[in-house]
Amino acid sequence: MYGIFSYGITLPRIGWKQGNRILDLEVVGLLGYFSDLNIDPAVFAQPVLNDFIALGKPTHQAIRQRIIDLLADKAGVLKSVHEQVFIHESRAQMHLPVRVGDYTDFYAGIHHAENVGRMFRPDGDPLLPNYKQLPVAYHGRASSIVVSGTPIRRPNGQFLGSDKQPVFGPSQALDFELELGLIIGKSIPLGEPISVHEAEEYIFGVTLFNDWSARDIQRWEYQPLGPFLGKNFASSLSAWVLPFDELEPFRIAGLHQEPTPLSYLQTAKPRHFTIELEVWLKPADGEEICIARTNAKYLYWNFAQMIAHHTVGGCNLNIGDVLATGTISGLEPGSYGSLLELSWNGTRPLHLSHTEARTFLANGDTITLRGWGFLNGIRVDLGEVSGSIQPALQL
Amino acid sequence: MYGIFSYGITLPRIGWKQGNRILDLEVVGLLGYFSDLNIDPAVFAQPVLNDFIALGKPTHQAIRQRIIDLLADKAGVLKSVHEQVFIHESRAQMHLPVRVGDYTDFYAGIHHAENVGRMFRPDGDPLLPNYKQLPVAYHGRASSIVVSGTPIRRPNGQFLGSDKQPVFGPSQALDFELELGLIIGKSIPLGEPISVHEAEEYIFGVTLFNDWSARDIQRWEYQPLGPFLGKNFASSLSAWVLPFDELEPFRIAGLHQEPTPLSYLQTAKPRHFTIELEVWLKPADGEEICIARTNAKYLYWNFAQMIAHHTVGGCNLNIGDVLATGTISGLEPGSYGSLLELSWNGTRPLHLSHTEARTFLANGDTITLRGWGFLNGIRVDLGEVSGSIQPALQL
Repeated sequence: MYGIFSYGITLPRIGWKQGNRILDLEVVGLLGYFSDLNIDPAVFAQPVLNDFIALGKPTHQAIRQRIIDLLADKAGVLKSVHEQVFIHESRAQMHLPVRVGDYTDFYAGIHHAENVGRMFRPDGDPLLPNYKQLPVAYHGRASSIVVSGTPIRRPNGQFLGSDKQPVFGPSQALDFELELGLIIGKSIPLGEPISVHEAEEYIFGVTLFNDWSARDIQRWEYQPLGPFLGKNFASSLSAWVLPFDELEPFRIAGLHQEPTPLSYLQTAKPRHFTIELEVWLKPADGEEICIARTNAKYLYWNFAQMIAHHTVGGCNLNIGDVLATGTISGLEPGSYGSLLELSWNGTRPLHLSHTEARTFLANGDTITLRGWGFLNGIRVDLGEVSGSIQPALQL
Repeated sequence: MYGIFSYGITLPRIGWKQGNRILDLEVVGLLGYFSDLNIDPAVFAQPVLNDFIALGKPTHQAIRQRIIDLLADKAGVLKSVHEQVFIHESRAQMHLPVRVGDYTDFYAGIHHAENVGRMFRPDGDPLLPNYKQLPVAYHGRASSIVVSGTPIRRPNGQFLGSDKQPVFGPSQALDFELELGLIIGKSIPLGEPISVHEAEEYIFGVTLFNDWSARDIQRWEYQPLGPFLGKNFASSLSAWVLPFDELEPFRIAGLHQEPTPLSYLQTAKPRHFTIELEVWLKPADGEEICIARTNAKYLYWNFAQMIAHHTVGGCNLNIGDVLATGTISGLEPGSYGSLLELSWNGTRPLHLSHTEARTFLANGDTITLRGWGFLNGIRVDLGEVSGSIQPALQL
């Protein structure tokens, strides 16, 4: 996985994470190990991955193969420079891996959408009529995306009090959302749609993504134009980006899509992925426990369909843009990707221990999302994204 | 007004528009006319205003005063260098004036919100319960903001056909939206709210803004997360940015806000502005005619309230961010800021001439929004934003 790290007095640069060690690609480059690939080592001495991403997929594949060869050659060339090229991750300061131009959040986790529908429209169909016709999405706030590990301050905001009158104060219903984030790898100009068949070529990599949500603020503000302050106080992106190619062993057909989507969303090839996902909660003074286990296979719409839909009207995409999937939930209560669902809108507290329970997040809680692919004996780690809740600012 | 222009083989640089002439601020600076102000002329040799904006309000005020003095001194110092410093606007190529990090669209035009409510919820209150409690807003797409004059391609997309089944094709309900856009002039970090009393200090300038909308696409997609493809194919920003200070003569109290907003949105000082606004439509082979006249005084929420609300939960703002007001409509049919309202959702065609009528925009139509302040004998021009509709891409 690629990320941006610094340590000691060094400037941020690109590293490759292998277990708990980081391979310093700037130093590897300066030592000449990429020189026959015609790669300028300066591309690794960058505070974000964007310029590296712009090198394009063939170059990424050549670099990746060289990294594999160097790491596999245990007795070989890197041994003599071991101290220079490897940094233990405990010594590294991680940075936001990409400069995010725009951020889009989809709603492709169908069981999450059904659960929300059941809670808030108990008498209707849990899914709205458009849900199976198009990948519903909205534009989120790019400037407030932070790297894993950044503390998350509980937002103040306006919501309805117990007497149904608006009040102002710290959110009483702070939540996480378990999502995957795609990092766009190739720009497309305004007015040029990307076909669903070519869409995967536009993905540089995949990350874990936590779209923190203040449910009380969101519920009061969101009609008719969608979420705003309920979401824009922060979203957490993992520090490490898994190259999209590494998901290849986990490709599956995905959920059956009925009704058949319109032709611009139709794709014969399997374009879903089975990725194991977990949510862990650590109270301020307690043990970390796993509160949900699910899988990316519960996304109704696949990545290619999201990109094809996003661009079909002419909207451009730029390198470093983030497309998040929306909350991924499974079918069972223990597989829900938000506290909104796990506590069924606060009506069924989630018991963490004999003494601790949660409806929504408490100050001091740390949420960590983890993911990995595991199929046919092959395992690929997707890393984690983590954030701890700080008390609201006193205004 | 400040803008970014180039001509002939020059690189883009900052200019000040005065009537139909552009004062080339890079050349003025190189000739030494800003040197006693301690301004490096290189700040004017930029493809966007962002670095110039970062100089801060006292510097902008000093530069502005110098420009006023130079322009007023008709017989004076600029006379000998007239050919070097003035470019007729017909020779200039205009560029997007700012690099937009994030773009937010409010919904503060109350008569627009009421009209939409009357059309789509005829049996209910035209305004939703949150409307007078908070400035409703959503995040828009920053990457598809284009400068005035850029052609606008009719988007393809998915919408409901006459049999209420989804179909794909060119939007049949392409519309404009008459808005003002604020250009943020000072960054605020994540987690630090801006008080309503200080909020105006964060505005660099004001522009005209057209939030093009495909009503059929928007109507089918927008539940439950708000507008997406119905809006993100393009928004047009005027090429010229009026410094916020120049609106001072047009400050007014604005609409009475009842119920009284929560305290974080309360401000005693008048913070609305009276700005005359017009919409002009030119068919491909016809005369340009004015189809709507309205005024920014019909914004329910003022700029300061928009900024205070946007940041109260901790969302950061960056220099160059665009905050648009939402569509501004008056009380009478001839004062509506969108064709959705002017044609009452297509039910009352708008007659342009004996032979031409519109429900929504036709290919070849050019929409130009114009604005100016005029009060107590003082007039300040806000310029215009224009765009012509091209046929949809054949897919």
